[in-house]
Parts: sequence; structure tokens; C-alpha cells
Amino acid sequence: MIIMKTDSTPEQLARVIHEIRKSGLKSDVSQGEFQTVIGLVGDERRVDFAHFAALPGVKETMMIETPYKLISREYGRFSGGLTENRVITVGNVRIGGDEPVFIAGPCAVESKAQLFKIAEGIKKAGAHILRGGIFKPRSSVHSFQGLGAGGQEKAEEALEWLQRAGQKYEMPVITEVRGESQINLVAEHADILQIGSRNMYNQDLLARAARKGKPILLKRHFGAGIEEFLSFAEYIAAEGNRDIILCERGVLPVGKGKGYTRYTLDLAAVPAIQKETYLPIICDPSHGTGRRDLVFNMSCATIAAGASGVMIEAHYNPEEAVVDGQQTVTLDELKDIIDSCQRIRKLMTPGMEEN
Amino acid sequence: MIIMKTDSTPEQLARVIHEIRKSGLKSDVSQGEFQTVIGLVGDERRVDFAHFAALPGVKETMMIETPYKLISREYGRFSGGLTENRVITVGNVRIGGDEPVFIAGPCAVESKAQLFKIAEGIKKAGAHILRGGIFKPRSSVHSFQGLGAGGQEKAEEALEWLQRAGQKYEMPVITEVRGESQINLVAEHADILQIGSRNMYNQDLLARAARKGKPILLKRHFGAGIEEFLSFAEYIAAEGNRDIILCERGVLPVGKGKGYTRYTLDLAAVPAIQKETYLPIICDPSHGTGRRDLVFNMSCATIAAGASGVMIEAHYNPEEAVVDGQQTVTLDELKDIIDSCQRIRKLMTPGMEEN
Amino acid sequence: MIIMKTDSTPEQLARVIHEIRKSGLKSDVSQGEFQTVIGLVGDERRVDFAHFAALPGVKETMMIETPYKLISREYGRFSGGLTENRVITVGNVRIGGDEPVFIAGPCAVESKAQLFKIAEGIKKAGAHILRGGIFKPRSSVHSFQGLGAGGQEKAEEALEWLQRAGQKYEMPVITEVRGESQINLVAEHADILQIGSRNMYNQDLLARAARKGKPILLKRHFGAGIEEFLSFAEYIAAEGNRDIILCERGVLPVGKGKGYTRYTLDLAAVPAIQKETYLPIICDPSHGTGRRDLVFNMSCATIAAGASGVMIEAHYNPEEAVVDGQQTVTLDELKDIIDSCQRIRKLMTPGMEEN
Amino acid sequence: MIIMKTDSTPEQLARVIHEIRKSGLKSDVSQGEFQTVIGLVGDERRVDFAHFAALPGVKETMMIETPYKLISREYGRFSGGLTENRVITVGNVRIGGDEPVFIAGPCAVESKAQLFKIAEGIKKAGAHILRGGIFKPRSSVHSFQGLGAGGQEKAEEALEWLQRAGQKYEMPVITEVRGESQINLVAEHADILQIGSRNMYNQDLLARAARKGKPILLKRHFGAGIEEFLSFAEYIAAEGNRDIILCERGVLPVGKGKGYTRYTLDLAAVPAIQKETYLPIICDPSHGTGRRDLVFNMSCATIAAGASGVMIEAHYNPEEAVVDGQQTVTLDELKDIIDSCQRIRKLMTPGMEEN
Repeated sequence: MIIMKTDSTPEQLARVIHEIRKSGLKSDVSQGEFQTVIGLVGDERRVDFAHFAALPGVKETMMIETPYKLISREYGRFSGGLTENRVITVGNVRIGGDEPVFIAGPCAVESKAQLFKIAEGIKKAGAHILRGGIFKPRSSVHSFQGLGAGGQEKAEEALEWLQRAGQKYEMPVITEVRGESQINLVAEHADILQIGSRNMYNQDLLARAARKGKPILLKRHFGAGIEEFLSFAEYIAAEGNRDIILCERGVLPVGKGKGYTRYTLDLAAVPAIQKETYLPIICDPSHGTGRRDLVFNMSCATIAAGASGVMIEAHYNPEEAVVDGQQTVTLDELKDIIDSCQRIRKLMTPGMEEN
Repeated sequence: MIIMKTDSTPEQLARVIHEIRKSGLKSDVSQGEFQTVIGLVGDERRVDFAHFAALPGVKETMMIETPYKLISREYGRFSGGLTENRVITVGNVRIGGDEPVFIAGPCAVESKAQLFKIAEGIKKAGAHILRGGIFKPRSSVHSFQGLGAGGQEKAEEALEWLQRAGQKYEMPVITEVRGESQINLVAEHADILQIGSRNMYNQDLLARAARKGKPILLKRHFGAGIEEFLSFAEYIAAEGNRDIILCERGVLPVGKGKGYTRYTLDLAAVPAIQKETYLPIICDPSHGTGRRDLVFNMSCATIAAGASGVMIEAHYNPEEAVVDGQQTVTLDELKDIIDSCQRIRKLMTPGMEEN
Repeated sequence: MIIMKTDSTPEQLARVIHEIRKSGLKSDVSQGEFQTVIGLVGDERRVDFAHFAALPGVKETMMIETPYKLISREYGRFSGGLTENRVITVGNVRIGGDEPVFIAGPCAVESKAQLFKIAEGIKKAGAHILRGGIFKPRSSVHSFQGLGAGGQEKAEEALEWLQRAGQKYEMPVITEVRGESQINLVAEHADILQIGSRNMYNQDLLARAARKGKPILLKRHFGAGIEEFLSFAEYIAAEGNRDIILCERGVLPVGKGKGYTRYTLDLAAVPAIQKETYLPIICDPSHGTGRRDLVFNMSCATIAAGASGVMIEAHYNPEEAVVDGQQTVTLDELKDIIDSCQRIRKLMTPGMEEN
Repeated sequence: MIIMKTDSTPEQLARVIHEIRKSGLKSDVSQGEFQTVIGLVGDERRVDFAHFAALPGVKETMMIETPYKLISREYGRFSGGLTENRVITVGNVRIGGDEPVFIAGPCAVESKAQLFKIAEGIKKAGAHILRGGIFKPRSSVHSFQGLGAGGQEKAEEALEWLQRAGQKYEMPVITEVRGESQINLVAEHADILQIGSRNMYNQDLLARAARKGKPILLKRHFGAGIEEFLSFAEYIAAEGNRDIILCERGVLPVGKGKGYTRYTLDLAAVPAIQKETYLPIICDPSHGTGRRDLVFNMSCATIAAGASGVMIEAHYNPEEAVVDGQQTVTLDELKDIIDSCQRIRKLMTPGMEEN
């Protein structure tokens, strides 16, 4: 990290960037109100920091040791505007601010009617963002892969439903990009691009999706440690895109015997990650537990753990959902969840009770 | 499970028990208000249920498939008084009732002064039960093993401090029984016997401790699935002791890289276990995270997840604690935690706000 | 699975395929010496098997329950030519036959000189296939990502070195395809496309790479169970490509404390997988252990466990390797490993000692 | 660790030991041919090494950082007689020497006839040590817990059968000690005391069993890392008992979906542990895989990985075994396994082919 003097000139900045490129690294320039900071993308150990410290206009240089420096609180403090948590604004929704955000919708988009009926329902229940899978990652090639599997035309049609449902009910929409070839199409219709758990390690997908400039919701892989999760979020940040919403969705369960939950929702990752990065983090108790009857409790616990929001699979009739019905709540249940979560959040925000 | 007729005689009951013993199994007799139920301890598949159904006084027989039948809700429903959650009363404290219970104290008892000072502090902070380790399970034989390692006399002295601190500040006390030879000594001084995570699979210790008739707090092993956890709790129940407090304290973390939490606190296990058994379950976020700065959030999340209480390591000066100082909160922090948890619990108990 | 009569006509076959498509599934036709078998790609539960059984030319229909039916031994038995293990021939090398196959080379291609010197050395040591990473998947965006990260031209140059080194030393070559955009380029130069552990769940990459028609080496994800591993190999098979080499490379280690091996090499997966599928499986003890001093023992154990080959990182001077030097063996060590493995394999092949 | 001068006197040694005790630690004295070495049992950081270095008769002092110093190769090198691997001699069997050792027998002793018939069979098959469980650790209190559960008299009878079967067929015998109260009884009849996987963390059991002075076979817990495994073996060594046979028996499997093996046999732990300690290590592929059809391959792989032996469940008719029949091999299979393993071991021992 290179911090420029407050009175440094654009030419001095340009020279520093030029020299960084010569060292084989890329620059990430943050121009804050008071100072300009340059993050180095690449192996800092290959850089002669003494050389850079001596360049005109350079105030000081610092080496950040973590593999996720661009999204670290340390870097955020210096690069201006990120002294606190980053709030990501999408349409009328602020993610990472004082109010918790609720993302809801069906696991998979099945039809226009299904989607609009659910969109209306979740809006009434108090949700802020509409989700719906069109390109579904599945463990078996023989399972339903989402409407996106039906070809370009079908995929586009489903994406348009999603976009219009969002417009009609005034909610930004989010859907998953499962492969590189879907990025352009999805980015045309969705407000937030979701990268699923199974793709967390897919650095090519992360980098290419990041370049579309839209916010990205990145789910933690179920086998990934926290350091890896943040290190792969850094692949997005390294493309100049800091609109990253982290999402904890459960890790591999431990032990023998019958599984009572599909995954183990790692709620302590929420405050642990908040100490490391300024990015917002939410949880997905639907996939995290795989059980509709646990979603209420685990949503409340998510907010009590300090998360910025909850992602919940909801349907007017979970039994008829083609995918993941067993973990999908009804619209009434969704309303209860949102109400309880909001009350817990108020309790936990110092000074908010007076308002 | 054998359900006796309401008008069955003691002689008929005795005969059934006699025949069960002849089959090589043991009986667990629950005499409820309306009916008497006999649980079978042993392999039910070796039993000829048709034979028992035909015995005089027998109303019906049922086979329960889970390995934890005596503590199951199914068995509880039939055996009277356990139609709802079991509330375990220890002194002036009710565990499993409407109010959450807070167990606090030092990781290890170090001196009389240290213990009494902490006991006074946690009482003021609102805690209900005093904890303090005297026989410490440790990963290295070369580490401090608790005052109990200093011989019989030292162990007895430390146990007496614990007992008196509890009496003085009017709190029941709990401490760990690490080996079979410590059971008698500990049971003389403690109100609740703790069996630690590393001993969850130690069926001989479980059975012998159970026979003392005192409540037992059983911690889940960090490598155990939920089914195993309940199956080993059943070892206690099979000795006729149903005063079992389950405790989730974190499972092995997943993934590569630096560990941000010592274990992964599995909060979804709380509601999942509550569907299976009538026994109360609490959490230990101190061991579960290993980080003092995460204990507040994870205590709140524990209560939001529906747990009956929280176990927290607290000290007037965590830095000077010999063991686990990095996960020990101050007495002020403890007060904040208890206050916030109680407010969350009130929020989540339907109809309690009006009171 | 639909088995046609031996005297069925092409028209009858065409009609069956047409009806399968009408059901929303795809067909996988295997014309063996004696019979034609049609595998169904998609959800078989949506198919009316009775209807198909009644079509002219159909001998019988069978439902295969596993999510990896096309690569299953059961399907192989019926679809002809796969009654035994599948042998994949690449140039002068047979993978899955009587002789174990050794794939060796540097972790990353660093220069033409480095690559050719290693290629010559591994050939002398007895290796059959040359490996070398050009697109390197890395946990940190700030680490060296392989020469492929230097742009199209650099990538092509490195791929040409690999191709020519293979031609010069008469070995097929293998290198990793990390993202969809690299498939065409890599397929032009490599004989086998490697899909790395982190991409095992990347179904879009698997399907697209499969369509190039070249053999694919698929590594098991370090968090994947065996069923998932085989289910994702099925994504390749579903594109009509059965030239799949499975590779076990270690799963997440269990437990606390210092890590002695980078991963846990799951050697029992070798015979377990061989019971399920006709595809060959090899192991990668370099990544599996992360320790040069364990590669000899674990290579021998790999062959003793019954694997069809070993993949080993080798270098004339491991200390100077930019990536993974600590797990890379010298060329002399490689020779020892190959010799010992071949002797163990001879021992274990019934009747081979007499030859 | 304190190394005495070669000409130090017994009085000087006594004084050092006395001072160690005063520091709150215990001494482990090893008198080798050339020098006397004192290991410190307890927290070395509490010791003023400079003080000890200045005592008369002391040559030098060294601090060993690992939590398993008494069993470390580093300590072994200094304490004489342990410069190489430790060979543990039990009756006519040498464990840890050039020849691999085979321990075989039924999972559970069921009757005298069953035991003697199996003992005869495994002897003919080439096994060296007879195993048979009498106190069985079980996941469910409702399962068969071994003949030892039938009371003191039954337990003693079964132990006598075991002892006599060993005498008759000239094999040392091993059986599990599951709880502290069984130690005396088992130690009277068995040549080696087994401490099972579930009890690896049971430090009280380890210490008490160690004091009987008989060799102890310690199984790794399925959730334990290598450092923990060795750290708990150190509990045995700290009692002055170095006759410890380590046993890898599989760790918790990773991933979702159907389990193909009961555990994941961690064969790389074999050479990794051998770098750390002079103690012998063997494997148990029966429990490690839970599948009879994998035991042959995994036994061969065990020996190829460098282990000192294999522990195998064998029965003349596995189908009629009450416990674990699905992982028990026949006596013919056992013979094949032993023959193949011995041939692999010969191959791998440098210079042994000539003999």
C-alpha cells in the first residue's frame, strides 16, 4: 500500500502507477477526501518498498500481510470513505447500514405466475430484495437445472420475468451466475449477481463477473475457511469492484450418524469476518439448515450475531416447489421472521430504542 | 416401550419387569399421573413384543427406533410429566423454563480469593450458577491441569472453596468430573456434575456419574454428530437419571488457512435437538469461539436460536487468568451479555411482553 | 436405461430417441457388439418406463438409481465394451490397463529451459505423461497465477513449449483448464485437459471441456464425498465423453493443532470408487500430502491400494521452484518412486510374476 | 531436558531431581549406555534453565517445544537406546522391527468355542497377536456391549478364555480397556492393553492404564489431528511407560452424500508420525473402512506406507459375527492379506531381497 502526500500531483501519481506496473503488479487507486492511497494487486514481496518510498509525492508505504488486503479494514481506513462499514446501495435498498436487509423468493423460478405471486407475497411480508434461481447448480446432471438450462431464449425469458417482477414490486433482484458464459445475460437483467457456494473457488468467474460493475453476492464454500472466503472475495475487489456482499450459508457438518441439518451454519463467522473487513455479511439459513422448521430460529440468531441481513427461500406453497421445498418457508412464516429479526436488531443497536 | 393399563396392579408390573430382565434387558419405569410406562434398556430387537403385549396388565407395546429413546419426545409424551420440556431445578434455579439461565465463572479455579471475587462479580452481573474448573482436561500433559492435579487434599480444598462460594452468593455450583476416580469427591461438593467435550464418548464415566443422582451437564464432543450426542446422553438416562443438561460448545472448524474461531459453534443444533428431546440445551460461546470479542454476539445468537441458557467464562481481569484468558470476558461485559440476552428472550417468548 | 433388441432397426432406435427427447431428457447411445443401450440423461423419474418398454424394438428398460449412472459399472455392463475397466489410450500410453501410469513434471511451467530440462529428466526416470501448470488456481489473487496470467500471447507460448516438450520426449502432455475461456486454447495444445480440485463443482466448465472430445483428468474437491465426485464426473459423461481419469488428491484434514500434512490422502477411495465405476483412478500424493518427504511412501501406498497411476510434482531442483517446491521431489527420487511402484504393482497382479 | 555429565554422581542426579520437584515438575530419568538424560514432565516454561545448567554434574539443558517431547525423536536421540525406532517385545513378537506384525481376531469375543476356533485360524493364517473385544465401546446404550457388560464374573471368564487361547496358540493377546474400573482385571489377563479411539482424549484412563507397566496400543480418535494424537500418547509416556503402539484407524469422512467408507483411513499419518516419534505405528483398515471388500487393498497400502503392522478383524464366518460382521474378513482372506503384505514389506526394505 502506498499513501500519497496530500499535495502530490497527478503526474507523481501517474509515475508511481507506472513503476508499479513495471514491477509486474497492478494498482488499485482510492482517492479519498484527504489522501490518495494505492493498493498493490500482486505479490508485494516482489516490490522494493524503499524505492517507492523515495519517489516524489509519496508520503509512506506499508505492507499488508493478509491475502485479502484490499477488502481489509486496515486498507479501508487509509483509502478514505471506508473508515466505517461499507454500505452498498442497490435501488432503494442499503445493504450494510442500520437496517437489516431481507432477500427472499423461490429457490428456482418455475413460471411467470409463480414468480409474480411470490414477489407480491414477499413484498407484503416486508422483504427488500427478490431472489430466484434460473441457472441452478445441481449435484446431479440428471436433476432439474433451472429454466436457464432450456437454452438462451428460455433463459432470457425467465430473466425478464425476474426483472419485471422486481420493477412491479419495487425490489432489486438477484440471481445466480453459474458459469462464465451467463455473465453478460444475467448482468443485463439482475441488479445483484450471485456467485454460489460451489463456485466460490472459481476465480475466473469471480473476476469476470466483477468487471460488470454490479454488486456481487458471494457465498462461502461449504468447505472453505474464513481466510479462504475473504481471499476469494479479494479476486472481485482486485478488479476494482468493492460492491461485495458476503454470505455465510453453512459448512460441512461434522460427525457420524443421521444428519439433522444439511450444513452447519457458522454464525460466529459473522462477527469474526466483521472484524476483518468493511464489507457487509448476511446469512442464508435456508441452505444452511435445509429445514423449514429451523429457519425462524436461525434467522433470529443471524441478526443477533450481528449480520446485515438474511436470505430466505419463500413460497406461497412450499410443498409444490420443484427444488428445495423442504427448506422453504411460507409467506406468513416469512413475515414473522422479518418482524422478529427487526425487533432483535433494534434491541441490539445502541441508542436506537429512543428513536 | 411397554404401556401398562391404568388399572394394572403392582404384581402385573413386577411380572413385566421380571420378564424383561429374563430377555436380557433392563427396565426404565416411569409412573405418570395417568399411566405407567416401561422403557426397555438394551436391544429391543431381541424382545418378543407379541409376548409382552399378551401379558396381564399390559395395554400396548411400541418399538422406538432411535438410539436415544428414553430422552426422546416420543417416550416423554407417554411416560408422564414430560409432555413438555423438562425443567431441571437446582437450588433456586430452573433450567429449561421460561427464563434463560446464565452459568459463569473462571475457566480454572486458581485460589480462594480469585474464586470468591469472581463469584461475587458474576452474581452482581446477573448470573445464576457458578462454574470453575478443578480437574482440567488438557491437550498436553505438560500444561496446568487444575488444582485437582495437586493431590486429593488440594482437590478437596478447591472443591470446598467452590461449594462455599456458591453458598455465600446463593448460586448452585458446577465443576467438571474428568475421570471415574473423581466422581465421589466432586459429587460431594458440586450441585451439577459437568462432563466435558473430550469425555462425551466415555460411556463408563457417564454411567457412573449418572448414578450419583445429581444433575449432569453433558458437553457435545467437537467431532460428534447430533445423533451421537443424544445417544451418549442416553447412557445417563439409562441409569435412571433424567436431569441432563445438554451443552453445545462448538465442533471442529472446516477449511484451510488461519483459524478465526477455535471451533464452529453449531447453533442450529439447538432447535434441531429441541425437536428430538425434552431435555434443555444451552451453549458455551467461550469455548465455542475461543475469542472474548465474539462472546457477546454469540451469546445473543444462542438465545435467539432458542437455547435455555449460556455458559460463559468470566473473570475480573481476564489477562491474569492462567487458562483461556483470551476467551474470558470481564464482569462488565458479562452484565451486558446477560442484559441483552434477557431482552432478546423476552422478545421471542410469545405474550411475555405484556407482563 | 433402455436396452434395444438385437434385431431392432435404426428406425426403431430413432423413434426411441425421439420419444426420449419429447420427455425432456437427452439420450446417450452405446452401440456394443451385441446390443444397443440408451442411457437417459435427465430426471428418469419423469419418464414413463412402461411406455418405452412397449415401443417396437425395445427389449427392456431399467432404472438406475445412482446420480452417476452413465459411468457406473452397472451401465457399463450393458452398454458393451465396458464389461471390464475402461482403458483410455493417449498417444503411446494406456491409462487403466495392467501397467501403472506415472504423470510427472513441475507444478508450474516457468520457462522453456526449465520445462525441457524437467521433461527430459522425468522421461529418463520412467514417467509416461508430462504435466505442467500454465493457468494456476491460487488462493490469493496476489500470488503467482502461472504464465497464463500474462495474457493470451504468453499463455500460447507456454502451451507451445509444453506441446513441443511432449513431442520431443514422446510423452502426452496434460495441463489445467481453470476457466471456460481457456478451453479452446488449452485443447489445441494439450493431450489431456486437467480440471482441478477447486473446479470439481464447476459444472459449466466440466460440460464445455468435455465437448472438446479430449480425455479429461478430474480431481476430487477436497471437501467432496465420493458420491459427489462421481456425480460431477457424470457431467462429463453426459456430454458423450467417457475418457475420464479420476484423481484423488486429498481431502480436508481433521482435528486441531499443527497440520502435518496439507490434506488427508483418501486412499480407500481408490478401491471404493473402483467398485462403482469402470473409469480409471489415480492419486496425487504431492498435493495430497504437501510434503516431499512423504511422496515416496504415499506413492507406494497408492499403487498398493490398487490405483492405475500416480501424479507427482518433480523438478531437477525443487528449492528453486516458484510454486509448491516443498512438495516437489527430485528426478532421482522420482526414479526410485517409479521403480518401487512398478515392483509393488507386479506383486499385486495375479499371475504376473511368472511373466 | 537435562543431560548429565558422563562422570556425574548419583548424588548429583538426586539433587537435580529434587530441584525439579521443587519447581513443581516431575522427572523422567533415562539412563543410557553413555549418558543420563532427565526429561521434565510439566510446564518447562516455569523452569529456570540457567539455574539447572549451573548445578554440579549437569552437562547441558535443552528446551523441547513440542507437547510430545518424551516420545519425540529428539528426546530419544539423547536418552539412549532410542536412537533408532523403538522395538516393543511382547512374548515372542517384536513390534516396530523389520517384520510387520499382524493382529487379528474377532471384533467381539462371543463364546469360548468361537474364540478358540478363530485363534487357531488366524495362527494358521500367519497372524502374531490375538485380539478380541470384551468391553465394547458402543454408540448406543441399547446395543451389545460385549461379554464384559454381563458383570465381573462373566468378564473374568471371557478374559480367561482370551488368555488361554493366546497360550494355546502361542500368541500374545490384546483387548480393550474401556473404563478405569476395568484396568486391573484386564491387565491380569492381557499382554497388551488397548485404548480405543473414543477414549484417546481420556487422560485419566491413559495415565492409570500406563501405570500397569504393560504395553499399550493407543488408537487415534477419529476427530483428532496428529499433534493431538501424539500429545495424548505423551500422557502414557509421562507415567514412565514407553511401550506404546500407535494405531491409525480412520478419521471422520468429508463431504456430502452416501458414505462409501465408514471413516477415512489417514495413511499419510504413518510416515508423518514416524518422522516425529520413535514409537511404532500400525493401522486398522477394518474399522478404518468398515468394509470387508476394502481390507485387502488397504492392508497392502498400510504396509506400503511404511507401517509396522496391521490390525484386522477376522472370523471363520463373518456373517454370524454379532458386531461388525460387514468389515470382518474370512480366515482365507486373512492369509492372502498377510502373504501380500509380507511380500510388499520385503520389497520395500533395502537389502532384504538378498536374504
